[in-house]
Amino acid sequence: MWMNKNEHTFIGFDSSFDEADIVVFGAPFDGTTSFRPGTRFAPNVMRMESDGLETYSPYLDKDLEEIKVFDAGDLTLPFGDTNQVLKTIETFTKDLLLEDKLPIMIGGEHLISYAAIKAVYEQYPDLRILHFDAHTDLRESYMGVKLSHACVMKRVWDLVGDGRIYQFGIRSGEKSEFEWAKQHTYLHKFNCHSLKEYLTSLDQYPLYVTIDLDILDPSIFPGTGTPEAGGISFQEMLSVIEELQPLTIVGADLVELCPHYDSSGVSTAVACKTLRELVLAL
Amino acid sequence: MWMNKNEHTFIGFDSSFDEADIVVFGAPFDGTTSFRPGTRFAPNVMRMESDGLETYSPYLDKDLEEIKVFDAGDLTLPFGDTNQVLKTIETFTKDLLLEDKLPIMIGGEHLISYAAIKAVYEQYPDLRILHFDAHTDLRESYMGVKLSHACVMKRVWDLVGDGRIYQFGIRSGEKSEFEWAKQHTYLHKFNCHSLKEYLTSLDQYPLYVTIDLDILDPSIFPGTGTPEAGGISFQEMLSVIEELQPLTIVGADLVELCPHYDSSGVSTAVACKTLRELVLAL
Amino acid sequence: MWMNKNEHTFIGFDSSFDEADIVVFGAPFDGTTSFRPGTRFAPNVMRMESDGLETYSPYLDKDLEEIKVFDAGDLTLPFGDTNQVLKTIETFTKDLLLEDKLPIMIGGEHLISYAAIKAVYEQYPDLRILHFDAHTDLRESYMGVKLSHACVMKRVWDLVGDGRIYQFGIRSGEKSEFEWAKQHTYLHKFNCHSLKEYLTSLDQYPLYVTIDLDILDPSIFPGTGTPEAGGISFQEMLSVIEELQPLTIVGADLVELCPHYDSSGVSTAVACKTLRELVLAL
Amino acid sequence: MWMNKNEHTFIGFDSSFDEADIVVFGAPFDGTTSFRPGTRFAPNVMRMESDGLETYSPYLDKDLEEIKVFDAGDLTLPFGDTNQVLKTIETFTKDLLLEDKLPIMIGGEHLISYAAIKAVYEQYPDLRILHFDAHTDLRESYMGVKLSHACVMKRVWDLVGDGRIYQFGIRSGEKSEFEWAKQHTYLHKFNCHSLKEYLTSLDQYPLYVTIDLDILDPSIFPGTGTPEAGGISFQEMLSVIEELQPLTIVGADLVELCPHYDSSGVSTAVACKTLRELVLAL
Amino acid sequence: MWMNKNEHTFIGFDSSFDEADIVVFGAPFDGTTSFRPGTRFAPNVMRMESDGLETYSPYLDKDLEEIKVFDAGDLTLPFGDTNQVLKTIETFTKDLLLEDKLPIMIGGEHLISYAAIKAVYEQYPDLRILHFDAHTDLRESYMGVKLSHACVMKRVWDLVGDGRIYQFGIRSGEKSEFEWAKQHTYLHKFNCHSLKEYLTSLDQYPLYVTIDLDILDPSIFPGTGTPEAGGISFQEMLSVIEELQPLTIVGADLVELCPHYDSSGVSTAVACKTLRELVLAL
Amino acid sequence: MWMNKNEHTFIGFDSSFDEADIVVFGAPFDGTTSFRPGTRFAPNVMRMESDGLETYSPYLDKDLEEIKVFDAGDLTLPFGDTNQVLKTIETFTKDLLLEDKLPIMIGGEHLISYAAIKAVYEQYPDLRILHFDAHTDLRESYMGVKLSHACVMKRVWDLVGDGRIYQFGIRSGEKSEFEWAKQHTYLHKFNCHSLKEYLTSLDQYPLYVTIDLDILDPSIFPGTGTPEAGGISFQEMLSVIEELQPLTIVGADLVELCPHYDSSGVSTAVACKTLRELVLAL
Repeated sequence: MWMNKNEHTFIGFDSSFDEADIVVFGAPFDGTTSFRPGTRFAPNVMRMESDGLETYSPYLDKDLEEIKVFDAGDLTLPFGDTNQVLKTIETFTKDLLLEDKLPIMIGGEHLISYAAIKAVYEQYPDLRILHFDAHTDLRESYMGVKLSHACVMKRVWDLVGDGRIYQFGIRSGEKSEFEWAKQHTYLHKFNCHSLKEYLTSLDQYPLYVTIDLDILDPSIFPGTGTPEAGGISFQEMLSVIEELQPLTIVGADLVELCPHYDSSGVSTAVACKTLRELVLAL
Repeated sequence: MWMNKNEHTFIGFDSSFDEADIVVFGAPFDGTTSFRPGTRFAPNVMRMESDGLETYSPYLDKDLEEIKVFDAGDLTLPFGDTNQVLKTIETFTKDLLLEDKLPIMIGGEHLISYAAIKAVYEQYPDLRILHFDAHTDLRESYMGVKLSHACVMKRVWDLVGDGRIYQFGIRSGEKSEFEWAKQHTYLHKFNCHSLKEYLTSLDQYPLYVTIDLDILDPSIFPGTGTPEAGGISFQEMLSVIEELQPLTIVGADLVELCPHYDSSGVSTAVACKTLRELVLAL
Repeated sequence: MWMNKNEHTFIGFDSSFDEADIVVFGAPFDGTTSFRPGTRFAPNVMRMESDGLETYSPYLDKDLEEIKVFDAGDLTLPFGDTNQVLKTIETFTKDLLLEDKLPIMIGGEHLISYAAIKAVYEQYPDLRILHFDAHTDLRESYMGVKLSHACVMKRVWDLVGDGRIYQFGIRSGEKSEFEWAKQHTYLHKFNCHSLKEYLTSLDQYPLYVTIDLDILDPSIFPGTGTPEAGGISFQEMLSVIEELQPLTIVGADLVELCPHYDSSGVSTAVACKTLRELVLAL
Repeated sequence: MWMNKNEHTFIGFDSSFDEADIVVFGAPFDGTTSFRPGTRFAPNVMRMESDGLETYSPYLDKDLEEIKVFDAGDLTLPFGDTNQVLKTIETFTKDLLLEDKLPIMIGGEHLISYAAIKAVYEQYPDLRILHFDAHTDLRESYMGVKLSHACVMKRVWDLVGDGRIYQFGIRSGEKSEFEWAKQHTYLHKFNCHSLKEYLTSLDQYPLYVTIDLDILDPSIFPGTGTPEAGGISFQEMLSVIEELQPLTIVGADLVELCPHYDSSGVSTAVACKTLRELVLAL
Repeated sequence: MWMNKNEHTFIGFDSSFDEADIVVFGAPFDGTTSFRPGTRFAPNVMRMESDGLETYSPYLDKDLEEIKVFDAGDLTLPFGDTNQVLKTIETFTKDLLLEDKLPIMIGGEHLISYAAIKAVYEQYPDLRILHFDAHTDLRESYMGVKLSHACVMKRVWDLVGDGRIYQFGIRSGEKSEFEWAKQHTYLHKFNCHSLKEYLTSLDQYPLYVTIDLDILDPSIFPGTGTPEAGGISFQEMLSVIEELQPLTIVGADLVELCPHYDSSGVSTAVACKTLRELVLAL
Repeated sequence: MWMNKNEHTFIGFDSSFDEADIVVFGAPFDGTTSFRPGTRFAPNVMRMESDGLETYSPYLDKDLEEIKVFDAGDLTLPFGDTNQVLKTIETFTKDLLLEDKLPIMIGGEHLISYAAIKAVYEQYPDLRILHFDAHTDLRESYMGVKLSHACVMKRVWDLVGDGRIYQFGIRSGEKSEFEWAKQHTYLHKFNCHSLKEYLTSLDQYPLYVTIDLDILDPSIFPGTGTPEAGGISFQEMLSVIEELQPLTIVGADLVELCPHYDSSGVSTAVACKTLRELVLAL
């Protein structure tokens, strides 16, 4: 009874580290966010609000109690030093992979995905990236900064090269980004209908799934820094996750929940439910 | 002019008691709410915000001015004594039935439905219950408490037994609740499409309709204690109400509006409009 | 560098006045709003939040950088003197037309459309009005006031007469307004599906487009004074704008954004994006 | 039990009209508010929140149960027609005076005081006005409008002339207003310390007390349209009310609570408590 | 590194249980709250927000790093069953005392103090209670309920009898409560000036300190269910705590923080700082 | 009339650049903020809300119309690259000094003061710094970062050395910071009473005044990242500014307003009024 200090994990993520197959951790960084900051609060708010969630999914007919997930808490990240932040995330992710754990990262802003993908890519040189987002994130630099949330998929491309990045739901960006994507990534505007066309070919590769939650329509997910009307519904998100089920996912993240911009708590509840479904689908 | 002290009724519910066919009353109780409280504020906030509503429905082409509804205000309910709260609601509902009024109760949390249904069931032993909700509400007890919002339909089942409860829109619960329902209630997941299949057979019974407003998708109804993404749209709600029109409804309630969690007021407006349509459909 | 004092325009509306084909201006008036005020804040909040928007539209494959728009800032309007407010708007609009600029007005409440339409109508006696709204706005007077937001389309009708006003998306009003409209306007309930039927015949007339943003469903646009569930989706709004592209629009307005009622900022973002699409479609 | 429709009065103001010595009514108008509107919501929000108040004052050792107050509800005021709004208030106040009731009006913006004072002045030509406020309110006109909240005490002066208006707590206005006041009113900056110097001389006159609640420091009263730091504390407000006790007050108002700008509800609670103390002190 | 699941304690309360002299725990219950609920959220929100606090107090020149405090997390309390809630708290407190730990409880509503005091009183029959509050809390019952937040000090009196309860800061209650207190408790209105008069005589008794944070003025502590203007300043609170330093405190609680009613987070920060000072003063 | 695009300056700061003696500019950076971000929004929100302010100060009996201030708008600062941000501010400040303008910077977080002070110090090697703040800001590094808001006065000390920094109002920091300050700065806890003792000796030096607005008590200034109860009142702030009047101030800043954390707008109004008084006092 008196063993441990106050523990508060995501609901159902209460395995011990040793037993766990999956490790969830928070990366509460939003230091390059140019518009509305606050994604740093997401992991902790999600832990608290996850109490309102059931562990059972009637969609997948699975229960978190059937699988082993460890909640490692949040990384300590030094605001003001982007390089050190990314280094910390990369090292931590590498350590998890060495211990044979599947890493799932909760953002924070999208830039953090670059560090996690770098660690995963090192171990899986064949890696493909599934990118769900409202934004292209393909700028070469943003206001003179290359390590910026607005450039994260360009940085990932620097790493993995042409034909490795699959983008879905994109509905905002500069004209030149859309043009560039035609040559270098598989970019699909507005929705995820084309995902199923790739399922067979993606079957043979290790996959990293990065979900910028602003792919969702702001009607159901207003709590994000740059809401973009015209996004996918929660039901479409569920379908996407269901389609991912047979694939070999070796790492994943959920980013860009900014809980304070949605005082109703719906966005946080949506993020928690998406995380539950994603974890159950792995 | 000087006769009555400040009166404030739901818009259009301004009949006298004697003339009224329908009596609306508030049951502002949320004492067993385990997650986010505040449904106690719903009836009064709905009265104030109903001023933004028209009395005419272009959906049903009917007007509240054509029917007779009395707004009895809110019951005084003793927080901290659940038994006494339920007793008060039950007695009041019974009194309305004795005066030949159709009772419509505004919650408050879902537990209150148990008291109202008990009163109605006593007068209509053939009663069937139509239950619209995101949650199963079929736990035997919750944290050791049997009179809990999470158990309300189980308590109603204790009363009416197998095959009397029809559940629609359910998308959250424990695995065991979904299993149990297969034997004891007609539970339909995610939406209300199956309602029309029952219309003929339900035609011959007196019906109690309990609408937990969180059946609606949180995009249109964020103001509730436990928002569950993936709910029905407002248009589907309107269709449901239209389908109910020919049936014999002898009591109804709307519960789980928690207005403070939606500072935009949309949830309250939705609740008011749902109430208007429901009353016009009776 | 030191030439001008702090300038803050809608993103991409940074042409000089002389070069501009389109002039956008704010009319921050909400003095007759009977329910929840605050549309006065819309134009300035839109300017500030437009920084989160891209200038490129992946829907229309056009960029604001390709067209010339001048942001004239907000008119100074005397609260408490409705006549003077309308006079100021009318004169300003007239001046713009004399300078061969296409006027786009940002409200403010809907009454302001009357003044702008009056100015446009004087120059284009053949004018037709496309009215997108949740509400009929056809009352002869409201609480004894004829110059009221609730009467604006009736006032426009006083001006232009029968068969000139096309109304879409209407889902709220008094029964008598719906009746009256049958004889005098083309009123279409709930959605904009019928718009395409008029496109050919409208082709030959100069058009004024007035968009009361509450035509949108409150799930995606909660930030308005009188939210009405059951509205159109943002995608339907995009389709409408696309359909308007080939027509001859000589004036337009967007009204009834009330930004403070949506603390998430989604409504403002939606208004900004609608404005971008509308301007790109002209 | 079934006699009256839903009644909701300020706590303790539950006398019948005939028995009542004092009549409280709401004047929910904010149509000339130039900065942040919303005082229209004050009377109704105060009624609802007054439930959190005790009827007993430990400051004055008096109880609302010992006196007779009738809550007449809110006047229906036509937004958009300032003249008619003022007419309605004036007539209603006159009617109350004819019935020998002491009128207490709850705003609404400050302009409404002009109408009530006009009615009271007609019956009491010797009337003196005690004006508690952060602002001078002495402009001749504001943006070309003479019937504006910013001009209300100038309009009162038009009525009663020099040396009849006593102003306290003033800390905001144009330089010219402060200059003008030196010749025409008794204006006291920043606090109410000088009130006691006038008590003897004011003793012989009928008094109207108008309290713009923004005289309070925004730390304790943030919920107002134009918060001005440096105001009086709630304790000073209590002292002022205590000092007023022996005087002959024939009318009073509390204005400029804008409840939505204080989501904590403290401002509303302060307004309710001030009203309780004021009524107990009469 | 991988030993423990996500831990999140109040800042500086990171001792192990065995080493600790003081044990802090949350009692997140607000089931009898009659007006505005939400104190259930206080302990967890305080933990999260305590990260903004320093461990060092420049007031007492002490540092949390110098003392040993264990944060036991929150009790699991069954909403809807007040008796069981109180039983759980009482048993837990008793267990702490048996382990020779000084219990500090974070509410939750004030009723919970009754359970903790009961446990402490059993071990310290000479116990005196210092009660800091805006409200008398001396009702015999409230809406027919005896175990209510509004009755908590009356219940404590049932236990300990006359002359054992010292009340400070009281500024709200029924007249009869103030009358009753004259015979049975030491009640001091409005502030804590009289505390120092008792210091010598209290020196010889074990003391339980119960701080209802609404004793603070709502200007600095708006986040509470029933804000009462006219409270003490934070500096006065610091003085009180300093005066308590030499006394023998054997148990304490802080109750009635309702964090959601203060979106600025100031109330939570004040509660955290008060807790730090209190713990450092023990 | 058509010359300039939408201009929006702080009220009264409408001089041209050439005529101006003082130039106000925004530095909307909060990239090293470790707790709650959002000061980036301050300058623009202050401009919009300054419309609620009068240009005349009854405290100083001066009017903004009597002096010449130019509002240069906001600097464009690259989030994610702290060095570049500081470089931009430093260069801009230097340019202003070369044009003989007195620079006043509106933050943003406190780190930005380092850049402005560096520019001012280069031109005035005798510079003294008056630092008003709740926090010491004297850490050598924070989470491994030396260019952090928590280290800003240490970085300034690196520049100017011992005995040049005067700190007032400090009530939060690490014990070691308070110890260090005893040898290197003039640190005064809790209030600004000691300021007057330095006035004569400071008379002979050029001064930079940096006001971290969180020196104010959070009751009047809740809108800041790390609210610290026990601060100075607004009246004390006014006294401080009045005392500064005779001194030779060559640069100044106001930092750490985080407007979104105070939805009432009071904090922004306080910041605007403080800015007005400061500018009038120069």
